[in-house]
Amino acid sequence: MTERELFEMLSAIAPADRQAMDAAAKRQAELAKPPGSLGKLETISVRLAGITGKVKNELGRCRVAVFAADNGVVREGVAVTPQSVTLAQSINMTRHITGMSSIAAFFGNDVRVIDVGIDSEHTPDGILNRKIARGTGNIAEGPAMTREQCLAAIAAGVEAADTAKKDGVDALGIGEMGIGNTTTAAAVLSALTGAPAETVTGFGSGLTDEAFQKKVRVVDRAARLNAPDPGNTIGVLASVGGFDLAAMTGAYLGCAKNRIPAVADGFISVTAALAAFRLCPAVKDFIFLSHASKERGCRLVYEQLGLQPMLLLDMRLGEGSGCPIAFQVMRAACAAMNGMATFPEAAIDDGYLAEIRGKDF
Amino acid sequence: MTERELFEMLSAIAPADRQAMDAAAKRQAELAKPPGSLGKLETISVRLAGITGKVKNELGRCRVAVFAADNGVVREGVAVTPQSVTLAQSINMTRHITGMSSIAAFFGNDVRVIDVGIDSEHTPDGILNRKIARGTGNIAEGPAMTREQCLAAIAAGVEAADTAKKDGVDALGIGEMGIGNTTTAAAVLSALTGAPAETVTGFGSGLTDEAFQKKVRVVDRAARLNAPDPGNTIGVLASVGGFDLAAMTGAYLGCAKNRIPAVADGFISVTAALAAFRLCPAVKDFIFLSHASKERGCRLVYEQLGLQPMLLLDMRLGEGSGCPIAFQVMRAACAAMNGMATFPEAAIDDGYLAEIRGKDF
Repeated sequence: MTERELFEMLSAIAPADRQAMDAAAKRQAELAKPPGSLGKLETISVRLAGITGKVKNELGRCRVAVFAADNGVVREGVAVTPQSVTLAQSINMTRHITGMSSIAAFFGNDVRVIDVGIDSEHTPDGILNRKIARGTGNIAEGPAMTREQCLAAIAAGVEAADTAKKDGVDALGIGEMGIGNTTTAAAVLSALTGAPAETVTGFGSGLTDEAFQKKVRVVDRAARLNAPDPGNTIGVLASVGGFDLAAMTGAYLGCAKNRIPAVADGFISVTAALAAFRLCPAVKDFIFLSHASKERGCRLVYEQLGLQPMLLLDMRLGEGSGCPIAFQVMRAACAAMNGMATFPEAAIDDGYLAEIRGKDF
Repeated sequence: MTERELFEMLSAIAPADRQAMDAAAKRQAELAKPPGSLGKLETISVRLAGITGKVKNELGRCRVAVFAADNGVVREGVAVTPQSVTLAQSINMTRHITGMSSIAAFFGNDVRVIDVGIDSEHTPDGILNRKIARGTGNIAEGPAMTREQCLAAIAAGVEAADTAKKDGVDALGIGEMGIGNTTTAAAVLSALTGAPAETVTGFGSGLTDEAFQKKVRVVDRAARLNAPDPGNTIGVLASVGGFDLAAMTGAYLGCAKNRIPAVADGFISVTAALAAFRLCPAVKDFIFLSHASKERGCRLVYEQLGLQPMLLLDMRLGEGSGCPIAFQVMRAACAAMNGMATFPEAAIDDGYLAEIRGKDF
């Protein structure tokens, strides 16, 4: 993907269909319930209408796309988990035995793993090979990748959304697998927002206080060394991001392009959603937040996006593990919109009511 | 149900099986993920083990039991919705066209409506007749019901859990339909906790500020007039509660007796859960909270129960509308517990890994 192709794609992205949203909001007001009493189930149904153009929707086929890549910054000792876990867990996802994939399999969701930069010579069977390189450069020593590599990763993400569209997917969850990627996500979030490293760096998979302090210093050093321009989102992703973050950014853009609802889940996923939003504000209309993550930094992203998550599960696993549950909430929102009676429909036949009520009513 | 029968039942309720919970927690620690990273999905799976005695569970059959009753206090003008809606919406629930029931039908959950005190001579077809009376007395003028009536309502709730057990139900949601019941729930919560009326009274289905002030005065008057003893939970339910609240209290007790997970949803439902907890602290082990309600007073109940909800949906419809979604979250918790690999199981064959990784690893 060239720079020009990307910007042509961005400029072709249309926001949600306000007419369909108005029609959906009107329908919600007609349903037999106190106005607004279904809370986010109502707003979800209205937002889905804005994406599909239809008041009544069904999320028949849901998929989680997982972008897997390694990060050179692990050489700084910022992760408790060995780097080899990126490859192993990517394979395990195709076997539906990880956190996200076991839940996805239970609910009948597809899982697609895309290798955008696992540190291996080959891509395992069952994983799509879109490898840019065997992991990124160490952001504490220099840029993560070239601008061309960043565009290639973004293209892999857009392609995943294009494929989802071809396959008739109704909602796409955006997940990741990449040891060290809470460090790169913190660096990207810090660069995009100007927030100091210590306010956006989290404990990842379970750091000690000492290891956490080191991680903050690494994020800070990466920011000072690479000094990305906050207004240049691709520059930020290329200098302090990762192949997973760039591909996920592309996946959100691709969902908006293909008018597919995208579910953002976890710190890395929502940070990529923010990057996509910076590249094209209309993308926000297509993003749904799954769970309220415990990872520091997430709240800042929620504020920047102006979106709120739907699940309160204290999860911090990553992978897109909240996506299959978020799909169920979104399906519930559709079920209420599609199945509830309007006030006239909810009125019970007067003769029957009189008979039941009997005397003294 | 006599007082004695109730207290014999309460004393026979055993807490969760700590051995099974320890075994489930051990299994969670063995699953290939950072410890605790699945958050409440882990604690839910451990708590379910404590209820069933099995580490691996499946919530195959889920049901929402809805207790419907009218409240004399509506004569004070505390509700925006006309009283006749209790009957009409109870009928509509059996038709699966209300908020809760449309979502329940979508997910394949049963819905059972139990008339414990709708103001009608007859009980409509499709609704179980356990009518105590045609609505309660006006708590702003005197007690809601007699102690005998309260015990009869509790018995109807216990029976619903007994029936669920016979029917092979794996999780029971506790819902309600009763115009005016946010007022009685506020009065019960205030009486049980000593919290001032204004801190536990909410806006219900959408009161104006003026109507809200009146509601607070009514709750306050009910408390002063009836002056229930906070230590006498049945006295509190009988004097300032409702047939729905008393029956729901019985349903939680019945779930604990039958070792069925109970889902509490919304202000009335969680207040009844607190009443059940006061009667028998072991009941808490069987209660799961669905959504974080916007209704004032809910937070106090969460604190008193020491439990936290799993959904962040800004809902305030009642009915038990969060239960079908909570069942999906609990099923996800089971799916992760049942489907995830342990660390040894997640290890990939060394030969295969070496082949994929190739050189330079």
